[in-house]
Amino acid sequence: MVNIAILGFGVVGSGVYEMIKNNKAVLTETCGCEINVRYVLDIRDFSSHPEAEKFTKNIKDILDDPDVSVVVEAMGGSHPAYEYTMDCLNAKKSVVTSNKEVVATFGKTFLSCANQNGVSYLYEASVGGGIPVLHPLLKCLSGNEIVKAYGILNGTTNYILTQMFKNQKSYESALREAQEKGYAERDPRADVEGIDTCRKICIISDIAFGGFVDPDAVHTEGITAVSGEDVSYAESRSCSIKLLGYTKKREDGIVVIVAPFMVSKDFILSNVDDVYNAVTIHGNAVEDVTFCGRGAGKFPTASAMVGDIIDIVNNTAGKNREFGRKDVKVVDYKSEPFSFYLKLSGSCAGIEKVFENCKVLSASDSSAVIITDKTTQSQVEDKVKNASLKIERLIRCL
Amino acid sequence: MVNIAILGFGVVGSGVYEMIKNNKAVLTETCGCEINVRYVLDIRDFSSHPEAEKFTKNIKDILDDPDVSVVVEAMGGSHPAYEYTMDCLNAKKSVVTSNKEVVATFGKTFLSCANQNGVSYLYEASVGGGIPVLHPLLKCLSGNEIVKAYGILNGTTNYILTQMFKNQKSYESALREAQEKGYAERDPRADVEGIDTCRKICIISDIAFGGFVDPDAVHTEGITAVSGEDVSYAESRSCSIKLLGYTKKREDGIVVIVAPFMVSKDFILSNVDDVYNAVTIHGNAVEDVTFCGRGAGKFPTASAMVGDIIDIVNNTAGKNREFGRKDVKVVDYKSEPFSFYLKLSGSCAGIEKVFENCKVLSASDSSAVIITDKTTQSQVEDKVKNASLKIERLIRCL
Repeated sequence: MVNIAILGFGVVGSGVYEMIKNNKAVLTETCGCEINVRYVLDIRDFSSHPEAEKFTKNIKDILDDPDVSVVVEAMGGSHPAYEYTMDCLNAKKSVVTSNKEVVATFGKTFLSCANQNGVSYLYEASVGGGIPVLHPLLKCLSGNEIVKAYGILNGTTNYILTQMFKNQKSYESALREAQEKGYAERDPRADVEGIDTCRKICIISDIAFGGFVDPDAVHTEGITAVSGEDVSYAESRSCSIKLLGYTKKREDGIVVIVAPFMVSKDFILSNVDDVYNAVTIHGNAVEDVTFCGRGAGKFPTASAMVGDIIDIVNNTAGKNREFGRKDVKVVDYKSEPFSFYLKLSGSCAGIEKVFENCKVLSASDSSAVIITDKTTQSQVEDKVKNASLKIERLIRCL
Repeated sequence: MVNIAILGFGVVGSGVYEMIKNNKAVLTETCGCEINVRYVLDIRDFSSHPEAEKFTKNIKDILDDPDVSVVVEAMGGSHPAYEYTMDCLNAKKSVVTSNKEVVATFGKTFLSCANQNGVSYLYEASVGGGIPVLHPLLKCLSGNEIVKAYGILNGTTNYILTQMFKNQKSYESALREAQEKGYAERDPRADVEGIDTCRKICIISDIAFGGFVDPDAVHTEGITAVSGEDVSYAESRSCSIKLLGYTKKREDGIVVIVAPFMVSKDFILSNVDDVYNAVTIHGNAVEDVTFCGRGAGKFPTASAMVGDIIDIVNNTAGKNREFGRKDVKVVDYKSEPFSFYLKLSGSCAGIEKVFENCKVLSASDSSAVIITDKTTQSQVEDKVKNASLKIERLIRCL
């Protein structure tokens, strides 16, 4: 029997608890032994829970019990998740988490600490919910040199964008609906401003390229500025607009961007709608592989965490691949070439001379909407400045 | 240093050889040691190869070398792949393969033999080429009870069907083009008749449900009967036609089918075109997850095999999950409920009374094309017989 503890009995923590109960037979077969939840830590009162005796408010109960070998951190937030995680690792207990905030911020410390203590720190559920993404990247694809990775990493914003496309809703009314359905928080900023996506693409980038990217240093645009006009122009070009986290290796470092992208229907990501997530990884041997599924939710998230627990119990996790083991420079995002959707104001009569080989979607004397040839944002800004134009809207194209 | 041997220096074997050379730095970092190809076995003459000294025609050279710990079987076909695999496993060497024929036929024997010898038998590349499918199923999703799995598992047929849809080609001319491009063999039967897909869905089914399905016992339809008319009707319903391997757990056993399906645009699989493969796995916690990418090709296949090698070298493969460890009955495919696309001949005037709640796509006195409500093929056949009709064409809808 393997004894585990669950920190936090909210949606995710209770999902792990219930999944272990519901799938007991499967787990016992897969692990060759029973997985037993010995403790659940939560500051709230669960004295009327059928297994009330398992609940504790004191982390010391868990730290001091030598029979607990795996701790599931499902508290969310940075504190006390950080302190509890460090305490557990130092007590030589492996930790499994869904908490992207702590992984993106403290992952380097955790992974190094876990290796020092000979235990595992696994965080599959922190990116893409139930979708196996990090494990395939760390294991199956690890013979590849990773070239780039990008994905729809936030279900809330994908739901909102899908509503704007499929049902012609405004951003505001789509957000309201997402809130009513429980897909968006009352304070939706972490989602709609791209902060959640940023944490996740940083984690992917850290695994793929071995650096340790500070989420605060990543150029992050949300979806709050996406307009009905953008949607119409995208549709006219057989594109969707998707909030992507994007990371790519270059000679001079890596580029990391979070922003809405126009995504052509030729990409699988373009057809990944509603609360679904999807990540495409491009390795130099495998080329593009894409992983899709539910990026959040009680049981999908629990599925990823239980998969990590199994890896630890079966002793197949291996040594933790540390973040920041390489000196990886994050280069200026304005130097990364894309094709750009631009809405410009000013004297636009000669726009095709300013942007050679651009596609003009609409133009008048005082404004223009164009798709540029592949160029960089720096070059776009130079051209716009030289022509005394102004950028009203800029969206990258995938 | 870890020494490996490669059996067969065709497309796949040379892909593994080149990938190990090209990605030496990545591999050395991932494994903490160098991976060295010590032998390449091939019956052909490679005396002018730059590393001619590594080539041998004699398996004994490999079997007798105690320093070779991993053998890559990239010969294809059943013999001598079967004998060499058994010899290697019994010589306590782990084996990695891309050979779906031997995995589907002898996987049970191999996995049991590998466990007896304390070595690994890994076969990620046998399904979905470079796409991580089996590893996620065996590891990440292994806390789930798998409900069903289905996928586009053959690139050749997906290319042909894509051409029929996107460029209105006939089956014959699409096949010819696939042959010209090297996507289809001169004798294309293993692909177009669904044999290749059948082997792969059997492997997925064996992992997911713990049985050992005989590919010869699986109802297997190819794509040779798919007509321009089928394509038109599918398009009129916003569907694609995809050759799917399909397996599902039921109370009374499992259903395994290989056949063309009409796939609504709501499914990601519907938009997976050309030589791409995709597999959807439905677990009771994670719900649907889909994996897409290149299902064949030199380096994508090598990527999967090298991933397996890394798992062995890093000692993270774990015990092999044996096929046939459970007594799983394959039930009659005609008892599995689907919605059916049917082209019927005979006196079709009262067709809506014969198939209640059907959608009539076209009807005359002597023929009808309909989409049935969810029902079984047995029930369809009974109704058709009782109404003195004849089934001219039947395609399941996903």
